[in-house]
Amino acid sequence: MSSTYGERFRLTIFGQSHAPAIGVTIEGLPAGVAVDEERLQQFLARRAPGQGRITTSRKEPDTPEFVSGLVDGRTCGAPLTAIIRNTNTRSRDYDNLRDCPRPGHADYPAQVKFGGYQDVAGGGHFSGRLTAPLCIAGGIAIQLLEKLGVTVAAHIQSIGSVDDASFDLAGVNAAQLQALLQKPFPVLRDGAAEEMRSAILAAKGNLDSLGGVIECAAVGVPVGWGDPMFGGMENRIAQLVFGIPAIRGIEFGLGFPAARLTGSQHNDPYYMDGGAVRTRTNRHGGILGGITSGMPVVFRAAVKPTASIAQRQESVSLSQKADAPLEVHGRHDPCIVPRAVPVMEAAAAIALLDAYFCASTNTKEDSPWI
Amino acid sequence: MSSTYGERFRLTIFGQSHAPAIGVTIEGLPAGVAVDEERLQQFLARRAPGQGRITTSRKEPDTPEFVSGLVDGRTCGAPLTAIIRNTNTRSRDYDNLRDCPRPGHADYPAQVKFGGYQDVAGGGHFSGRLTAPLCIAGGIAIQLLEKLGVTVAAHIQSIGSVDDASFDLAGVNAAQLQALLQKPFPVLRDGAAEEMRSAILAAKGNLDSLGGVIECAAVGVPVGWGDPMFGGMENRIAQLVFGIPAIRGIEFGLGFPAARLTGSQHNDPYYMDGGAVRTRTNRHGGILGGITSGMPVVFRAAVKPTASIAQRQESVSLSQKADAPLEVHGRHDPCIVPRAVPVMEAAAAIALLDAYFCASTNTKEDSPWI
Amino acid sequence: MSSTYGERFRLTIFGQSHAPAIGVTIEGLPAGVAVDEERLQQFLARRAPGQGRITTSRKEPDTPEFVSGLVDGRTCGAPLTAIIRNTNTRSRDYDNLRDCPRPGHADYPAQVKFGGYQDVAGGGHFSGRLTAPLCIAGGIAIQLLEKLGVTVAAHIQSIGSVDDASFDLAGVNAAQLQALLQKPFPVLRDGAAEEMRSAILAAKGNLDSLGGVIECAAVGVPVGWGDPMFGGMENRIAQLVFGIPAIRGIEFGLGFPAARLTGSQHNDPYYMDGGAVRTRTNRHGGILGGITSGMPVVFRAAVKPTASIAQRQESVSLSQKADAPLEVHGRHDPCIVPRAVPVMEAAAAIALLDAYFCASTNTKEDSPWI
Amino acid sequence: MSSTYGERFRLTIFGQSHAPAIGVTIEGLPAGVAVDEERLQQFLARRAPGQGRITTSRKEPDTPEFVSGLVDGRTCGAPLTAIIRNTNTRSRDYDNLRDCPRPGHADYPAQVKFGGYQDVAGGGHFSGRLTAPLCIAGGIAIQLLEKLGVTVAAHIQSIGSVDDASFDLAGVNAAQLQALLQKPFPVLRDGAAEEMRSAILAAKGNLDSLGGVIECAAVGVPVGWGDPMFGGMENRIAQLVFGIPAIRGIEFGLGFPAARLTGSQHNDPYYMDGGAVRTRTNRHGGILGGITSGMPVVFRAAVKPTASIAQRQESVSLSQKADAPLEVHGRHDPCIVPRAVPVMEAAAAIALLDAYFCASTNTKEDSPWI
Repeated sequence: MSSTYGERFRLTIFGQSHAPAIGVTIEGLPAGVAVDEERLQQFLARRAPGQGRITTSRKEPDTPEFVSGLVDGRTCGAPLTAIIRNTNTRSRDYDNLRDCPRPGHADYPAQVKFGGYQDVAGGGHFSGRLTAPLCIAGGIAIQLLEKLGVTVAAHIQSIGSVDDASFDLAGVNAAQLQALLQKPFPVLRDGAAEEMRSAILAAKGNLDSLGGVIECAAVGVPVGWGDPMFGGMENRIAQLVFGIPAIRGIEFGLGFPAARLTGSQHNDPYYMDGGAVRTRTNRHGGILGGITSGMPVVFRAAVKPTASIAQRQESVSLSQKADAPLEVHGRHDPCIVPRAVPVMEAAAAIALLDAYFCASTNTKEDSPWI
Repeated sequence: MSSTYGERFRLTIFGQSHAPAIGVTIEGLPAGVAVDEERLQQFLARRAPGQGRITTSRKEPDTPEFVSGLVDGRTCGAPLTAIIRNTNTRSRDYDNLRDCPRPGHADYPAQVKFGGYQDVAGGGHFSGRLTAPLCIAGGIAIQLLEKLGVTVAAHIQSIGSVDDASFDLAGVNAAQLQALLQKPFPVLRDGAAEEMRSAILAAKGNLDSLGGVIECAAVGVPVGWGDPMFGGMENRIAQLVFGIPAIRGIEFGLGFPAARLTGSQHNDPYYMDGGAVRTRTNRHGGILGGITSGMPVVFRAAVKPTASIAQRQESVSLSQKADAPLEVHGRHDPCIVPRAVPVMEAAAAIALLDAYFCASTNTKEDSPWI
Repeated sequence: MSSTYGERFRLTIFGQSHAPAIGVTIEGLPAGVAVDEERLQQFLARRAPGQGRITTSRKEPDTPEFVSGLVDGRTCGAPLTAIIRNTNTRSRDYDNLRDCPRPGHADYPAQVKFGGYQDVAGGGHFSGRLTAPLCIAGGIAIQLLEKLGVTVAAHIQSIGSVDDASFDLAGVNAAQLQALLQKPFPVLRDGAAEEMRSAILAAKGNLDSLGGVIECAAVGVPVGWGDPMFGGMENRIAQLVFGIPAIRGIEFGLGFPAARLTGSQHNDPYYMDGGAVRTRTNRHGGILGGITSGMPVVFRAAVKPTASIAQRQESVSLSQKADAPLEVHGRHDPCIVPRAVPVMEAAAAIALLDAYFCASTNTKEDSPWI
Repeated sequence: MSSTYGERFRLTIFGQSHAPAIGVTIEGLPAGVAVDEERLQQFLARRAPGQGRITTSRKEPDTPEFVSGLVDGRTCGAPLTAIIRNTNTRSRDYDNLRDCPRPGHADYPAQVKFGGYQDVAGGGHFSGRLTAPLCIAGGIAIQLLEKLGVTVAAHIQSIGSVDDASFDLAGVNAAQLQALLQKPFPVLRDGAAEEMRSAILAAKGNLDSLGGVIECAAVGVPVGWGDPMFGGMENRIAQLVFGIPAIRGIEFGLGFPAARLTGSQHNDPYYMDGGAVRTRTNRHGGILGGITSGMPVVFRAAVKPTASIAQRQESVSLSQKADAPLEVHGRHDPCIVPRAVPVMEAAAAIALLDAYFCASTNTKEDSPWI
């Protein structure tokens, strides 16, 4: 079903932007895992709105209540469910959207699919607000991955026409990622943050919006996670990442530019590094044949500019079957890219952890059958 | 499981490059569907190797035998299984790969994951040969989609540094796609085919290989296929496309360039066209909120250059834990992009048909519950 | 995952007996379905405890809060989540169970499986209390089935050694089932209720407990629901019913006694009844080859006697690795059979509705492919 | 989908009785497992027909061809597919069944569901012949379980009115099961085999058929396999067993008779046996709360009498909408119970092995998260 993801670490996300609550149920967590709620709250805070002039003015504490699955702060083997109450809703902002769909939003296809019964308020189940429960699951996945030696972090690769530096695909490491995680506006290049903020404010001033690209890395991933064909790490990550609103593309390793190289330029040579097999370069982005290679896992996702803009736009009246201008009200981010950074980390962590659990059938030397 | 795809139109792919056979089982086909085996064979022929100097010299008739699911040429409601015998195999070409992994291939991660028991011959289950059963399923899906008024076709957007024209995102139509399907080397721009062929032959002459980008479109898709969140059309297509070997990225509609536009530049205005709701432009690629909008569905996938090249490369000996040079023998395509075109069409068709079956719960006016 | 059931009408149950809440998420509900919360509440009341001397004295209003999926009382196409707060918990009753497992309960296997981190209070996720969210899903399924002309009801076939009459397998009808649904203690035979109540009170007086058998019927089910092999109606119902605590067996139609008949005694002859195909008898219980036949669907489930009894029992101390006597405290039903009646109806309704949604691929005359 | 079973050890069964082939694809087998094809063949031989006067005279060598997934006799981590060719088919025996459905068979519901396009020959996908691929998967599962110390065997509990002895629920052991596996007609009580054979021949002489009950046990199963709620061992086994044609009921441990006991009579007291926790009795059948307890797993399944009998029966002509007598021709077993014994063992083994793989998330002392 469409709001469920994962094979062995499985999450089901529920809620609409203006429903009583949003939330997530996680199945497959082993019993006994300590969940650090304070650190989880810090992780969620990175996604939360209301952080200044460049985000929506809607304020939500976004504090999850764990209604099941935890006993004395540890998982108990039962499904873990956390909910976040929606408190600061202004549903009337959306009254006319059932008739007059917003360009770039799901309004029109949802109207047809759900026969007009979809929840239009705040985008309903399509809202970016649903990334909050995704981050609950992701924040927990990050805590588990840490105990496996895996670090996940992302940075803003670009916003509009402002570019950050890129990860060194072969060299990106845990220390660098930890440093990124401390930054309120995570970029690699000095000065990029200020330029990006200026670009966002300029777009906001024009009643317009910006998109961007996020680059995400996971280091410390052992060899052997992910499966052939449709269970590959790319498949898993992509299936999850396209569940985040506004994503238009994803690429792994060198990505689209790989299509312009020759094989001799693109192949990553192997070498022995101490007792470990490594590649000198990492254009493959840490995944070969869908399976992790031990090198850093790196991917990039393109985020389109926020569809909700305050400019007058062309739309139609579905009831009158006629063209009709539209002005979108409500509170919106002029650029969601900064808030999408932890969401991308959450997505990577969830996909990796699920692949880890699936990798329990990897063939080990002490296997009972060999 | 990793070799299975789909919710309601579900396929399981089996086989290795040099196993006795490869094949596919399809579940969820309604009973009574006539399968046109001759047209299916023509579709498979577009993927088959041995078509000239730019493909591998391995020859395989690739004729599926339907061992179950068909009675008198029609589906009978039971799982449909088709197998293709592997006849032209030269497994000894691959003898040394268990110790000395090929750069850019799954050899090394597979060696670790499967404890050395993976099938190395011809890439085993990771081989591009496994796209043949994918094309059996896809060729059948295409036949069903036609009866729903949907046409799917792809063209070669680029090979190496040679670019084709691009689809007109809003204007691409069935006639244009039908014309593409007739071309042995499907491109939009006159002359592009010859330039691309030359580039491939030049790379081959250098014992090297090329990659490229494929652009795929589906027209005639009604509004309302695909689901929110992880069941979106992008998620479904991406999960499938990354199961095709060598894919490094995928983008929908305008794709990555969307990240550099403003919202007012990127949003597609609605208008009434006769009684139909359409968008003037189609930067959204026919999908909004994961659900089809009635506009053409368009996506692009990046194919890396073939990893198997005849040049001497750096690798390691896993047994000796030392660097070791490698020369890859065997028969390989200097560029798989042309053969990957029907595979991409197959992937699109499968994902769309599965979404169609899932859309059976769309709310219609004659719903029993309203 | 183990707390999830269903293909197209899918529910995930969460919560533990003494967690902050229990609840259910339902995916796959079409948009626009009116949920009658008052009737749902009445259905839940039939399962609720505290109805008199023969049930546990734990009182729970069991009123679900719908936190997502409903807008103005109708489904909106997003997952529907309902939670029930646990308010009347006395966890200290269970303090010693981690060391000294109760006979007949999951305590010991759960202790091993979950490494001692399972929630022991009130049975945790294994508690019969988790049938409340199952009944939320089932109560909604019943409302949808009604609009398809299907009625589901169960009666108490036996408690201890007291037997009720049995359904007339071929003749059971909607009016008879509606009458059962009105009874506080649903039996077919006059006097059976009083005899059963007496037997329960006698067992309670002996600090003991009773089990029984529940017989459940669904009438009005059209021909063609359910699928071959593992998707048969029996498979679907059984997979769900064994998720209800204390179930030890299930049988369809004539059930186990069928094994003692000959084929000529057991086969149900067909005849034409007006334009309809019917069978004169219904020993097959409305299911042939896993698919509904149009005759009443009938099954029986055996409920073991409540494992929690106040008598002193033999157990072990896991920490001391020694035999240890056990006295179980807490509030328990001397017989859960009466409260399990609506749970069985819920299970049947959920399995049938899921099969109905899956039957959307049945071949109809207006199929696009024929 | 309905022909697929399992979470982590997953099989998809394809084929119809008179299709070119039947077969199975198994996903989730670890790489490196040696499959003993000779022992598998011996296992399949126990299910094969043509063993004498009490089975159908249709002869099939039932030798699987492994077309994928094996390299040098060991699994390679790719899906394992085995097919069995159908060679001895006489489809014309079934010509009239599309119009005149056989009592007790799926003919009529299948006709409605599949719009008349189902494969009627030999029962199509509903045929008992499809238990051959189930036994391929089961025979392999049995080989894997052996390496985990688990032995599975079944005996004929009853045929018609002839009863065998029953397993001692707490005492049944590997030696006893091994002895059963050597018997051509597996019963516990001396003389039962001959009585049962006589009963079958008598029924055959009357152009009639018999059913029976099979009791199956698995010993050596560790504590902790199976999951709460719908992933319980009972749920898993039942979901599989009802996929075997003609099964009408299943019960675990003491089963239906448990419903007539009191709690103090039914609960199994714990005691320490050396360092091991055991129960003195095993009325719970080795499963508590869906999880194995370390005691023998025991269940019973009721098999209805073969529906195909040579006596003239009442049926209808669907085309003429009128009653019509029917005489069933073709070759049929007067009693399938003996051949169903290894099928039941296969089902138990598959469900147990799948639960074992799912139990990889059980909490162990060396867990990385504790």
